[in-house]
Formats: sequence, structure tokens, C-alpha cells
Amino acid sequence: MILHNEFGSDNHSGVHPDIMKAIESSNKDYTIAYGGDKYTKRAIKKFKEHFGNNIEVFFVYNGTAANILGLKNVTDSYNSILCAETAHLNVHECCGPENFTGCKLTTIPTLDGKLTIDSIKPFIVGIGDEHMAQPKVVSITQPTELGTVYTSKEVKDLADFVHKHEMLLHVDGARISNAAASLKKKLIEITRDVGVDVLSFGGTKNGMMFGEAVVFFNKNLSKNFEYIRKQGMQLASKMRFISCQFEVFLSNDLWLKNAQHANNMAKLLYENIKEITDLKVTQKVDANAIFAIIPKKFISILQKKYYFHGYNSEVRWMCSFNTGEEDVLCFANIIKKTLSGK
Amino acid sequence: MILHNEFGSDNHSGVHPDIMKAIESSNKDYTIAYGGDKYTKRAIKKFKEHFGNNIEVFFVYNGTAANILGLKNVTDSYNSILCAETAHLNVHECCGPENFTGCKLTTIPTLDGKLTIDSIKPFIVGIGDEHMAQPKVVSITQPTELGTVYTSKEVKDLADFVHKHEMLLHVDGARISNAAASLKKKLIEITRDVGVDVLSFGGTKNGMMFGEAVVFFNKNLSKNFEYIRKQGMQLASKMRFISCQFEVFLSNDLWLKNAQHANNMAKLLYENIKEITDLKVTQKVDANAIFAIIPKKFISILQKKYYFHGYNSEVRWMCSFNTGEEDVLCFANIIKKTLSGK
Amino acid sequence: MILHNEFGSDNHSGVHPDIMKAIESSNKDYTIAYGGDKYTKRAIKKFKEHFGNNIEVFFVYNGTAANILGLKNVTDSYNSILCAETAHLNVHECCGPENFTGCKLTTIPTLDGKLTIDSIKPFIVGIGDEHMAQPKVVSITQPTELGTVYTSKEVKDLADFVHKHEMLLHVDGARISNAAASLKKKLIEITRDVGVDVLSFGGTKNGMMFGEAVVFFNKNLSKNFEYIRKQGMQLASKMRFISCQFEVFLSNDLWLKNAQHANNMAKLLYENIKEITDLKVTQKVDANAIFAIIPKKFISILQKKYYFHGYNSEVRWMCSFNTGEEDVLCFANIIKKTLSGK
Amino acid sequence: MILHNEFGSDNHSGVHPDIMKAIESSNKDYTIAYGGDKYTKRAIKKFKEHFGNNIEVFFVYNGTAANILGLKNVTDSYNSILCAETAHLNVHECCGPENFTGCKLTTIPTLDGKLTIDSIKPFIVGIGDEHMAQPKVVSITQPTELGTVYTSKEVKDLADFVHKHEMLLHVDGARISNAAASLKKKLIEITRDVGVDVLSFGGTKNGMMFGEAVVFFNKNLSKNFEYIRKQGMQLASKMRFISCQFEVFLSNDLWLKNAQHANNMAKLLYENIKEITDLKVTQKVDANAIFAIIPKKFISILQKKYYFHGYNSEVRWMCSFNTGEEDVLCFANIIKKTLSGK
Repeated sequence: MILHNEFGSDNHSGVHPDIMKAIESSNKDYTIAYGGDKYTKRAIKKFKEHFGNNIEVFFVYNGTAANILGLKNVTDSYNSILCAETAHLNVHECCGPENFTGCKLTTIPTLDGKLTIDSIKPFIVGIGDEHMAQPKVVSITQPTELGTVYTSKEVKDLADFVHKHEMLLHVDGARISNAAASLKKKLIEITRDVGVDVLSFGGTKNGMMFGEAVVFFNKNLSKNFEYIRKQGMQLASKMRFISCQFEVFLSNDLWLKNAQHANNMAKLLYENIKEITDLKVTQKVDANAIFAIIPKKFISILQKKYYFHGYNSEVRWMCSFNTGEEDVLCFANIIKKTLSGK
Repeated sequence: MILHNEFGSDNHSGVHPDIMKAIESSNKDYTIAYGGDKYTKRAIKKFKEHFGNNIEVFFVYNGTAANILGLKNVTDSYNSILCAETAHLNVHECCGPENFTGCKLTTIPTLDGKLTIDSIKPFIVGIGDEHMAQPKVVSITQPTELGTVYTSKEVKDLADFVHKHEMLLHVDGARISNAAASLKKKLIEITRDVGVDVLSFGGTKNGMMFGEAVVFFNKNLSKNFEYIRKQGMQLASKMRFISCQFEVFLSNDLWLKNAQHANNMAKLLYENIKEITDLKVTQKVDANAIFAIIPKKFISILQKKYYFHGYNSEVRWMCSFNTGEEDVLCFANIIKKTLSGK
Repeated sequence: MILHNEFGSDNHSGVHPDIMKAIESSNKDYTIAYGGDKYTKRAIKKFKEHFGNNIEVFFVYNGTAANILGLKNVTDSYNSILCAETAHLNVHECCGPENFTGCKLTTIPTLDGKLTIDSIKPFIVGIGDEHMAQPKVVSITQPTELGTVYTSKEVKDLADFVHKHEMLLHVDGARISNAAASLKKKLIEITRDVGVDVLSFGGTKNGMMFGEAVVFFNKNLSKNFEYIRKQGMQLASKMRFISCQFEVFLSNDLWLKNAQHANNMAKLLYENIKEITDLKVTQKVDANAIFAIIPKKFISILQKKYYFHGYNSEVRWMCSFNTGEEDVLCFANIIKKTLSGK
Repeated sequence: MILHNEFGSDNHSGVHPDIMKAIESSNKDYTIAYGGDKYTKRAIKKFKEHFGNNIEVFFVYNGTAANILGLKNVTDSYNSILCAETAHLNVHECCGPENFTGCKLTTIPTLDGKLTIDSIKPFIVGIGDEHMAQPKVVSITQPTELGTVYTSKEVKDLADFVHKHEMLLHVDGARISNAAASLKKKLIEITRDVGVDVLSFGGTKNGMMFGEAVVFFNKNLSKNFEYIRKQGMQLASKMRFISCQFEVFLSNDLWLKNAQHANNMAKLLYENIKEITDLKVTQKVDANAIFAIIPKKFISILQKKYYFHGYNSEVRWMCSFNTGEEDVLCFANIIKKTLSGK
């Protein structure tokens, strides 16, 4: 398995050099633990530069925690959380949401990973009926797990609808930077400005070593989150090493450059494979992922050249901040040759 | 607050240069995520060099997680876990153990943070009575939260007693290296060899950036832990950055040298303050912590020079792998002068 | 609202006179609490007469508890439970299953409330993938919440399939007596003999005052259930008053006569309404419920005569052990007249 | 074992004839389920006659549920609940409180089962420290598990202290009627009037068949309890059979007469044994229980005549609403003879 350059996951990439430098240079002196340090203060300030004041930001180790703990803080044990059937929350968190929140995940089938007012409406039922889970949150992933991106209007429409029903809009933004890059908008424009209440803000998949943030756009929603984070095993002792990453990540457009590059590489790959016979791209290539169907027999052959995930005859090719253009072109070529049987 | 050199916590220290170097040099190429990488394989191999084969090792982000998830895997929701009233588990994990395991923490008063057969015996009751929590685990901290160290015989006696009652012995080893250094024994000699079943093996407080390990000395106990870790929000995506730290930590006695230094500094501080009038050291200085009582009015004065934790008139002075000898002597001097009113 | 005779729920009926008599006559003398009494022993003996030896039976207060606690005992917190979208477990237990088991409910759309091998197969995925909930139990309701009854062969096929995947088959049998009456089979023939592992055995909906049973057909599955029941708040102190009901319920075919009567009344109602214009019976009338669609405007008019549940234009008419034949005919007549606008 | 008249538990007694009659006579007609019925309305009205308006009352099956669910509704997962080491909550609910609330039980040693301001004060610590459980509720049992009764002043002092710390006072009143009878006060005078916030109101131990109530004296505290009750498996379908019991229980002083009789019988027993050599009554006989120490060897001999609970050399003799005066005198005589070796 060749791993030095592959298309398996943006998790497989390493750490951006600027981030690594920040980590090294924050390693001096003694520093108060658990977030009382200057690095954390500065990182939070950066968040406020991007998202405005009157927000609350908490750092955690990973995206699963950001989702679960953020949702726990805004729900009660008898609530339901509506999400796409494909949501990370539902598929890849191993019952963590159910265990830690007690809530029911009401999962909604989609074609492209995106929820719509029409698709969630039938599940907002039983309000006030003590026998039934009470709908409280709609959680969307932006970009979705299928690589598609909600337009700002789509998010706003959902937010308005959700709020009308006294519910909240949560965004799993493990790759939110890629969405902003795709939409050519500021981070605030695709979240707070369009009505998002709670955001899991991702860093790891876009060049950080570890660390994600839970961002509450309404201070009432964040009340007592510090206890939830601690009991949720997510309060880092040497927190400066998360904070210093975020400070650099949110400075000089590093988050954006990294995301743009990943998106561009996906687009480049797409342009070079889209006309291959026997290959069908199944989702819009809005961000840094390509989903395609190819004859099943070729999958393992291709994986030996450049690793990627495949399920049955569907494949996912993922690009990251340090995917090389050369590798993209080389991989496209290999796909072409392999599928044409040459 | 002067923080560049202080006695607040071994968490306030930064990262050992060798560890930092390991992190940097593992930052190349693409690497499979979630622990399928070569760094993780090598780190686990290191653990086996220290603890023998037929163990299972899992990396998590922090010590609270190592405790809670390790205990969850070996208990049922109707069990009780016996621990000292002072246990981190009980005092500083914000109900995380109760939330995630469902178990009752049966807390036992101690003078020095150490459990004994006599002190736990009265709490092993109600076996088979469906109304009552069923005792399943005794959890000790080594060194204790009061800086004292169990002898290997003390641990073995507890283990034998516990096993006779079909219970398990868990060790919160956030500072287990300091205990080994104190006892001048190998890591295996103070854990596996004396009957410990599950160990939270600490790295962060002894020079690592983040990362702890749950070590099961019996494979039956670790069954399905990978799901518990994932749902417990502790499966690191870029896990190589934890693993590479452990590899170096467990090589060339780095773990031991760091711990020895911290212990030596505590001893040095102790020697230089033990005869101060109005200062009473309240616990044996077995590892890297000193607990003492001083007149309350002096605490805030001293904290301005070198930060440390104080509760009422009790103070805790903690040394770490990079506590400077000069600072110890200087701090001892300041204490002496301050308490004598000079 | 006329309630003395209605079609709202078999819960709305009272207690069968024989059951009431049993309660009265067990009210003498002091009796050991929590199930150590002679009434409980005799009731368990009755269960064994019906289901064979080597079973374990535990009494709880209600059906929600029988489901949740029975499932908790055979699952781990990282398992998924597959059930129909319409399952009581999913719709009417207010996140209790998620809260108490931690498991994910994987809900499967059906037309008639019945799961099939084909419908569950796509959800038995991710086995061994630590990121994903591990499928452990398929839970069916017999009769279903839509009034349909699985044939014994259908149950056996499911059980065989489920066991082949090292999973278990759970039956929510809140109305299991009605299924047996419908299928003209013994209780054991439609449960244990066809591979059911755990059964929620219902009493309340079929003439008892309160009380359901969790029946484990394999003693390994019931291990430690007494603690789960106690901590689940379902250990009745004066348990004789549940047990004495079950003893009578399972004697002299009382369970069967009650169920048969309820089924017969549903059939009678069906025969008298099935040809009404503008009325469409939507499910097979296998047991004691009729589901039908009628013009919405008539629902509230009809409800004033005989109460029943209606959702939009769909109605549910439920018969019980003491539904009167006269009332059935009268109600059928009213429906006929009302819908024809007379 | 002679059980028709014994001193094991007030749970071992049957049901008071007036209660049984109420059950029988509510068994007619169809009645809406889950508490929408007239019996429930009337029972709640009775509660308001006793406790005043602006309360919220919810019926559940048993006392363990009343405690756990009442506490769950007023706590968050990071709170601690302070209670006596001897509290039913702590000793006899098999980790149910920990499982369902997530909270830590902070247990306080007592001599007589009663908490005091002095004994709870040291445990109200760590407020605002994210690492530590946040104290939220003090739970007392009235009468205590040791048969002692708090005076109204003692309760008021606790309530005032607790409220000053923004905490709540919960009362486990499984035998609250016995406390009222003992103090010769109205139910409201020993609960609401002295600052109690949430009360588990007991029926079963005082002549009911099953059924307890959670009474919130402040409507803010009861918000959404209906969902907590349902998911807590405690919403009775044929609820009329709990409600009709409470209606009679709270009418014509039945609750009081039953409790007074039980208390009187305990007093009578006490008067007839207190001067026996080798017998030491260890707790004040305030309500319906006697705790005493006798030579261990006599316990099993006595238990053969009249059953009771004994732990080591300590015995508990419990009287109930239908303990016979003759039996008390006879038992006293047997104790006397047995201990004197005659």
C-alpha cells in the first residue's frame, strides 16, 4: 500500500508546516493548564475575529466529541435529533450520541447527503405527546459526507424553518473550511449569518494535528458547557498545544488556502476522469471529495497504486491540503488506463 | 503570575525536546488514520517490551478518558468501584465515571491517599443482593494524589485480596513513571507482576504533549474496547502523533529519566524546607509532590513568586521533568524568608 | 366522550373479573416482598408449563420496561437494535431505549409493520468496524403495531437468519396472546419453538391490571437481570399482586379466551364495515385492531359516539377482552350511516 | 417462617381493605389510559387539598422510581446529590440514581440517619470548578432509614441553608405519613411549609398495593417531567388503579390512621422490650421501626417465630398498618424469654 500520497482521507495527511511551527514555538516556559493560558485567549480572539463577538468557543480533541458534546449541551434526554442517514453522527460515532445525550437520532434518507425542509417536515411530530421523543435539533453536515455543499440560502431556509418550530440548527463542520472555500464566502456568512446555532468547527482534516472547536452563537446555549466538556473527557491539560494551532490556522487565511487547495485538487481530478467510460461520478464535486461508481474488479487494483476507500463498486477519492497536483494527474491517468483495460 | 518556572502542576510544563522531535519527524507522508499506522505498531511493541506480551494497549487523549473508559470496559452498570475519597476519579472527573459507566463510586477515607485491605473490606458487601451495587473494581492511584507511593507489596496484597473476591484491581497511573522511579523498579514489577489488571498509563504529566494509554494485562478484559474508545470520543484520527510520542517516551529510559528528575527536585525542595518553622509537610515525599501546611496569609504572597495550588492553609508543590534545580533552591529560599517574616 | 364502551385501546378496558378475584384473595397474611413469595413461585411455574423449563422469567410493571430492560440485558452500549419504523420501541418509548441501553435503534420502513430478511439485510453492516454500531438484536412486535401477525414460519426464518449473524431475536409481545389466538397455536410454538431469544410477555392489554414479564429462553441471556431490573426501577415490593394475576392469566386458558374474544370482535367489526364506500381497511385484520382510512371530516363525529384514535384520515379501532358484540354492531352501523351522510 | 404476622417490613403487609375496595370499584367501564381519567384528576385534587395549589403531582409505580426520576428532573449530569450514607438512594437502588441521572452521590456518614448543616457543609465545595461535580440537591429521608424523624425545624434549617447555596431540598418520603403522625403535624407542615422542593410521597408501605407520587412544590422544577416519567418506564397505562388508591388513601385520614397504628405498635413493642438485659435499642423509636442490638446467636431463633431483618447482631423490627397488638405483645414476650435463655 503506497501511502505517501493517496486519496483515502484528509485525515491521512500530516500537519501543515506552519501549524507544526506554532506547536514548537509554544513549547517554552511553564503555562497554566486547561485553557487558562495566553495561547487559548489568543485563539479565542481569532475565532471572534471570524465569527463576531458574543460567541462562546470551546476546544476539544476531535470531531466526534465536538458533535456529541455540543449536541448534549442543547438537548434533554427525551429529545430527538434529526440528521441525514449518512451523517457522521449516525454512521461513524458508534452510538456515542445515543450514549452521551440519550437522544434519538431520527435519520432521514437523502440522495446527496443534504436535508431539506420537505424531507425533515414529516419527522417533526408528536410535539407535546409524552410518549414520543421531542424534536429539538436538526443537524446538518457542511460539506456533507457525500462531498456536496449546502448553499447559504439552503442553510438559511432550514434555519428559519427550524427556528419557527422552536428547534435549533447544528452544523457538523468537520470540513467547514472547504465549504467556505467552495462557496467563496467568509466563515461567518455560511454559519452565524444564516442562522446556525451550534457549530462543530473542524481543524484536523485541514492541516491541524488534533483539535476541533465547539462554537455556540448564542451564549444561552453554551451555559455550563465547561462541565459537559470535562465529564466528556475532552478537557485537554496542555491545552496550549491545541490553541496555538487554531491561532495560526485562523491567521493569514491558512484555513482558506488549505481548503482551497484541497478543493482545487478534487476539481482537477474530476476534470481528468469525468469522461472515462465505465466511471460515473455520483455526487456533485463541490468540495474536496469525489464519489464515483466503477466496475468493482478495478477497485483493488487501483488501491494498490493510490490508497482510497471503496464500498462495493462505489469509491471515494479525497483530497487534502497537501495533495500534490502531480499525484492527481498521475492517479487520473492510472484510473483511465486501468478502466480501459490497458 | 510568574509561570516560566513554577510548582503548580506537572501539567504546566511543556513537552520534552525528544518528544517534540519525534512529533516533527513523524510528520511526513500520508499515513493511515485511527491507529493503522507504523508508528502505532512500534509504540505498542515498546509497551510489550516493558510489560510483556499478551497485553492489550489502546491510546487515548487524556488521563480522565483512560480511567473512565478502562473502567467502563470491565464493569456493568450495576457495579461499584471502590476508590479513595481523594481519587482523581472521584474528585476531578466531574461525574464522568458515573455518567459513562453508571457505576457507583464507593469512596473510602484515607490519611495518605492509600487504600488498604482493612479500609476496603467493610465496603465489599451486599454480594448477590439485587438491591445493592455489586463491588467489582478497586481503583488505586499510584502515586496517590497526595504524592505517596504504594510499595509493590502493598499493591500485591491488595490485588490478592481483590482477586479473592472476584474483583479487579485498576491503577490510575497518570504518574506511574514517578512511582517506578521512586520504588527503583521496572514498570512491569509494580503493575503486572503484582496483580494489576488494568492500568491507566500516563504520558502527559511526564513530558508528553498529550496521550495516555489503557493497558489491559488480560485480553479478556479488553474485549471490544475499540468500540468503547470510539463511542467515548477518544479514537484519534491522526493517531501517529500520539504513538510516536510513546515510542520515544518508552525508549532509552526517557520515561524514567524524566520521572527521576521530577522526584529528585521534589526531594531537593523537601530537604531545603523541612525544617522551616511554621511549615509542616503533611505527606511522605515519595514522588514529585510536596504537601504542606503553612500559615494561610503567606500563600498568596508566595504564589506571586512561583505559582502553585493552595487550599485553605494546605499547599501542593509539584515538580516536573523540567523543573530547574536553581528554581527549587530559589523557591525554598523564598519560602524560608517569607515564613520567617523577613 | 363516551368511554364505557369504545375502540380506543385495549388499555382502556378494565381488569378481567377472574384477575380481580385473584388480587383480592392474595391479599391476606404477611408475605415476603420483592418476589420471594409463594404467588411468584406459582406464577413462574405456570410460565414453565407454557414455555418449557430452562427459561428465566422476571416480572416488571409495564411493557415499556419489559422491552427496554430485556434489551439492555442482551446488548452492549455500542450495539444497534434493528426494528420496524413503527415499533413501539421506536415511536412510543420517548428515547427510553436509547437512554437506558445506549444502543442505536436502526429503524426499517415497512408497509405492514413486519420485518423481513430482505428488509433487515442491508442494515447488518460494519461488523468489526470500530466506528460503527454493531448490530446485535432484531426486535419484532407480534402482533405488529399495525395489527398484522407474523406467521410462525416468518418468525422462524427471521430467527434463523439473525442467529446466522450471531444476533438475537427479541419479540415485543405486549399482545402476544392475540397472536397465538390468531395463529391457533400454543404460546411456545410461536416463540421459543421458532427461535425467539427474549420475549416481552404482555398481560395488561389482555385483562390484567398491571404487570408484564421478561422471558429469556436461554439462561445465559438472563444473567444478572435482577440487578438491571432493580436499577431500572421495576422491582415491585408487593410483587405478589403482579404474580397472582399471571397465575390466573395463564390458567384455564384465560389468556387465550380473552385474546380470542378481542380478535373475534375485530373480525366482526371488519365484516360489518369492509364494504362501506369511502372506507378503506389498510392492514390485514389478523388480531384485535383495524386500521382504515376514512374521510377526515367524519373522524371527530364518530369519536363522539365511540372513542378511538385517529391520525389525519387514518383511524385505529381496537377491541379488547371485554368489547361487547352489541357495541361492535352498533358502532359499525354508526360508521355506515355517518359515512353515507345519513 | 411464619409470615402471617411478622416484623420484616411494612412491605410485607398486604393492602388495606378500603384501598382494595377502591380498586374494585374503579374497575368498571372503559377509561382513558395514562392518566387522562377521572380517578387521576380526583387523586390530584386530593393532593392539592393536602399540599395546597400550585404543586405538580405525578404518579409512578414505586419509591425507587419516585426518587430517581424526581431527582433526574432537577439535576444536570454534572451535579452531585448529597445524602446520608444510609440513604435508600445510596444503599438500595443498585446504581439506579447514577445510571439515570449521571450524578455523583456524595454520601455523608451519620449516627442516626439524619443530615445536619454541619455535616453537609464540608461537601458543598468546588462551586464553579469545571473539574468537580457541582452540588445541586440535598436529599433526606423522612423518617430516616434508621427510624428517626427530623423535626420540622431541622428540616427548615436544612432547607434554608440549602437554598442559600442555590441548591434544592429533596425528601424521600416513602414513609412520610409515619413522620407526620409522629410529629403530629399535617403533611404540608412537614414538607412544603418548611421549604421542601421535591417530595417522593409514599403509599405502598402504608397500605397501598403499589404506587408512589412525585410532588414538586414549584412548577418550574416539574417542567417536562412527563417525558422523564415515560422514558423512565413509569407511565402506567391503566393508571386509574394507582389513582383510585391515592384518592382513598388521602381521604378520611386513612393515611394518618394507618401510619399512627404502625407507629403505635412500634412504640408498644419498644415499651415491652426496652428493659430486657442484653438488648440495646440503638435509635430513637420515632416512627414505625425499632433498631436494636442483641446477641447474634438469638437472631435466627427469633426469626423462626416472627420474621425480621438482622445484620450481624443488629436487628430491625418494623411495624405496619396491620400489625396486630396481640402479635406485638407475643413477640415481646418471646424476645424476653429467648434472651433470658428460658
